[in-house]
Amino acid sequence: MYAIGERINGMFKSVKSAIQERNPKPIHDLVSKQLEAGANCLDVNVGPAAADPLEAMEWLVNSIREVTQAPLAIDTTKPDVMRKGLEVAGPGSIINSTKGQQEQLDIFIPMAVEYEASLIALTIDENGIPRDATGRGEIALRVVAAAMEKGLEPDRLMIDAVILPVNVTQQTPGHVLDTIRNIKFLSDPPPKTVLGLSNVSQSTQLRELINRTYLVMALAAGLDAAICDVLDAELMDAMITAELLMNHAVYADDFLKAYRASVRN
Amino acid sequence: MYAIGERINGMFKSVKSAIQERNPKPIHDLVSKQLEAGANCLDVNVGPAAADPLEAMEWLVNSIREVTQAPLAIDTTKPDVMRKGLEVAGPGSIINSTKGQQEQLDIFIPMAVEYEASLIALTIDENGIPRDATGRGEIALRVVAAAMEKGLEPDRLMIDAVILPVNVTQQTPGHVLDTIRNIKFLSDPPPKTVLGLSNVSQSTQLRELINRTYLVMALAAGLDAAICDVLDAELMDAMITAELLMNHAVYADDFLKAYRASVRN
Repeated sequence: MYAIGERINGMFKSVKSAIQERNPKPIHDLVSKQLEAGANCLDVNVGPAAADPLEAMEWLVNSIREVTQAPLAIDTTKPDVMRKGLEVAGPGSIINSTKGQQEQLDIFIPMAVEYEASLIALTIDENGIPRDATGRGEIALRVVAAAMEKGLEPDRLMIDAVILPVNVTQQTPGHVLDTIRNIKFLSDPPPKTVLGLSNVSQSTQLRELINRTYLVMALAAGLDAAICDVLDAELMDAMITAELLMNHAVYADDFLKAYRASVRN
Repeated sequence: MYAIGERINGMFKSVKSAIQERNPKPIHDLVSKQLEAGANCLDVNVGPAAADPLEAMEWLVNSIREVTQAPLAIDTTKPDVMRKGLEVAGPGSIINSTKGQQEQLDIFIPMAVEYEASLIALTIDENGIPRDATGRGEIALRVVAAAMEKGLEPDRLMIDAVILPVNVTQQTPGHVLDTIRNIKFLSDPPPKTVLGLSNVSQSTQLRELINRTYLVMALAAGLDAAICDVLDAELMDAMITAELLMNHAVYADDFLKAYRASVRN
């Protein structure tokens, strides 16, 4: 599974003040900790409070690039901030994210093509978040068609079926699993699937337990990637064990260690 | 999920010596510990070393019945030992287990009808364990047909798709998940599904982690019951959290506690 580390986000206090003070040290720490923990890619979000989000994104991505060339997921809803992030980060980045309505697709799909980036598309459109798997699948299909039309290959498209907190709606986790399974049949090759995992446990009291349990379910349903807290060692243990059981990783007695070593190399 | 506690088994030293010495105390302890931990049913196996397995089963079930009327899964391959166990345990027991070949079905299906028991049927026949989900499904279908013919309702049938150790074959966990999903379409109502969970981790070094990860996957695939170590608290936490995420249990901030209380009452 492709693990996208979620911790470089202005919602976290240490990142917020690092951005405000233009102090790269806490950022460098989060880069190396997350890569060490098994992240394949790092999400980069300046947070909602950044005074000049465009300049903040430029500084943040540049700071990360001082210590790693790992792929970055530029996380913003603002097209100009996105463009700046992609420019500084370089090819192989991920656009995180577009929604499914046409106006947004018209902006972000060409941007993905131009910057040789992948594109995360949420199954949300002008009517909001669909209630079930069918509605989510319909938006995904529309996104796949739009991407193909504009020359973005389906395997550079990552559909995020939008998990909601389990204490808000208990039907959604099941619907999202169904959506992940269905998306495999949308095209050949199919688009990838991704989840912003931590949302499933938002404002619950046993967040880590809920996160890792749902990640295992989603991985077994075919999930390709997750934006998650790679510093949660139990989450990563569960993910690696699920990879083993789905025959995506070869068994060894010390399979946790072997998997982590293979990601870091 | 219907949790069948696996610990009253002559393979464990303390149970073996309790049987040899006809000492009910360690058995009573295992009964109350497992029920307290959330078992819905208790597996009862005298072990391969019991000198007189029929008498040992009679003593063992009688000892359990001194302290609980909880359902028991009588675990033996020997028809006469099974019959004795069912007789002493009373209606509502589980026959664990029959294989899928006709001679065995001819013995155990009528026995299930006679003793008002459910029947666990392994997807194994004269040719051994099928290599894939299709082969497992074929045996399951044959068992369902045989049960209907002899008057055993499908919902008193529990199909065990036979999980093998992940370090022996890494394809099997995926095949078993597919089988669990497919079995839901065999009849209406469908038979139940069950797994002897601990086998997935046999002779691996991280047994608990593998067990609980696979249980979450299987539960999400629709597994109804598991024979497992209910005394493994992290396994039960994972199971309960999976029940929550599949919307089988209602969310509460202390959902682990709430679920356990509901099982014990």
